[in-house]
Amino acid sequence: MNSPSEQNYIEQLSIDCVIFGYHNRQLKVLVPKLNFHGDFRALPSGFVTQHEDIDAAADRITRQRTGMQDIYLDQFHVFGKAGRSNEAFIKRLIELNQEKLAAKGLNKKEYDWITKRFVSIGYYALVDINKVTPEKTNIDASIDWYDIRQLPPMIMDHNEIVAKALDNLRVNMDEKLIAFRLLGETFTMKEVQELYETVFDKPFARNNFQKKILDMNVLERLEKKFTGAANKAPFLYRLRA
Amino acid sequence: MNSPSEQNYIEQLSIDCVIFGYHNRQLKVLVPKLNFHGDFRALPSGFVTQHEDIDAAADRITRQRTGMQDIYLDQFHVFGKAGRSNEAFIKRLIELNQEKLAAKGLNKKEYDWITKRFVSIGYYALVDINKVTPEKTNIDASIDWYDIRQLPPMIMDHNEIVAKALDNLRVNMDEKLIAFRLLGETFTMKEVQELYETVFDKPFARNNFQKKILDMNVLERLEKKFTGAANKAPFLYRLRA
Repeated sequence: MNSPSEQNYIEQLSIDCVIFGYHNRQLKVLVPKLNFHGDFRALPSGFVTQHEDIDAAADRITRQRTGMQDIYLDQFHVFGKAGRSNEAFIKRLIELNQEKLAAKGLNKKEYDWITKRFVSIGYYALVDINKVTPEKTNIDASIDWYDIRQLPPMIMDHNEIVAKALDNLRVNMDEKLIAFRLLGETFTMKEVQELYETVFDKPFARNNFQKKILDMNVLERLEKKFTGAANKAPFLYRLRA
Repeated sequence: MNSPSEQNYIEQLSIDCVIFGYHNRQLKVLVPKLNFHGDFRALPSGFVTQHEDIDAAADRITRQRTGMQDIYLDQFHVFGKAGRSNEAFIKRLIELNQEKLAAKGLNKKEYDWITKRFVSIGYYALVDINKVTPEKTNIDASIDWYDIRQLPPMIMDHNEIVAKALDNLRVNMDEKLIAFRLLGETFTMKEVQELYETVFDKPFARNNFQKKILDMNVLERLEKKFTGAANKAPFLYRLRA
C-alpha cells in the first residue's frame, strides 16, 4: 500500500474517475479489482498533491489506468455528504487481509488519514475503447470493462457515482458534442444513432435523429463506406477539425 | 475576523456562492463589500465543518446573506488550480488595515490557515429578488445587487467564478427548467421571454420561443392579467405543482 499521509496531498479531498468506453451497443465502465482478499472493486481514484491542479490529478489517474494521453475529462459532481468516509470499507479490508497487511504495514497515522471524511470530485472520461489497453496499478489484481447495466458492486458510493456520471453524460451529449469521443475517428450515421440509443437506453426515430445530428453542423461527410453491397453503402463522417 | 482555524472546518476547502436575482431585464448578482479599508468585494463564501454536508454549507452561506429559506442551489464547478490561494488578497488587506487588525488580531496560525491553497466548490443560487432582503454578515460593510454586465472587480478569481456560473445557468435553463425560480409565482409569457433574453443576452423569436416553453409542458395557464386594455390582456402562467 502507498502511504498517502506522507505524499503531501490535500487532506480529505479525493478524485473518483468514471472512464466510459463504448463497444458493440454497450456503454462500458473501466473498473479495477483491488489486490486484496475480499473481492473489492473501486473506481480509479486518487488524491491531489499540493502543487497539482485538480484537473491534472484526474488526468494522471485516468492515464495510469488507460495508458492514453489527452483524455477527454469532464468534472461532473462533488460528493460531499458529511458521513462520506471509507472507514467501513477499510475495516473490512483489514479484517480480511491481516496476513498481507502485517507484512506490508498500515500504521495508525495511515489509518487515520485514509479513514477521515472525504469530499470527492467526480470526473468522467470518454475514450475510444479500441485505443485503450487497461493497465493495472500496483494495488490492482485486475482491471476490466463492464457493461454499465451489469456493473459489479463497488466500494463506498462508487456505484452511485457512476449513475450520476451517466446522468451528466446524457445532459452533455448534446450540449458539448462530446458523444463522438466514444467512437473511432470515422463513423456512419447508424453508428452514431446506436451510440445515442445505448447511452439514453431508448430508440430514436431515424430521420429526426439524423436531422438533429447534422443540424449541429459539426460533422464532415467523407466517402462512402463500401461493404460489398454498393447500393446500401452508408457515408462515413468525422468531426470537423 | 472569525477564527476559521479553530472552527473544525475541512482544511483547504471553501465554498463560493453566486446568488442570482432578476429584475427589470437585468440579471443580478448579490455582492458584499468587506468591512475593511481597500474596497474589497467578494462573493458570499465560507467553509465546510467536519459534520456538515457540502450542500448544507452552501445553503447556510446563502441563507446568511438573503434571509431566505429553501433556496434553489446548483453545484456548478470546482475551482482547483494549484496556485489558487488568497494570500495576495490577504496581504493587501493586512497592509491597508493594520490599525484595525492590531486591535482584533490575526495571528500566524490564522494567517497560515487562511492563505493556504484552497479548492473551492462553486454553487449558484436562484432567488425571487422580491423576496430577498440582502443581509450583511459581521464582516460586511454593505451588500448590494449588481447587474451582471456591470459587476465590480472582486477578490481572487471571483469574477471568473460568476462567468462560469452564468455559462452553467444557461445550460441548465432548459435542462432543469430552473429559469422560473428567478420569477415570481405567476408570470406572463412575455416576462418569461424577457428573462431568457436577459440571461442569454440575445433576442428570441416570439412564436418559436412560446412554443418551446409550452412544449416543456411544465406551465399551468391561469386567468388573464387584466391591465385595463382588455383585448390585449395576456395570460398568466405558473409552474405546475
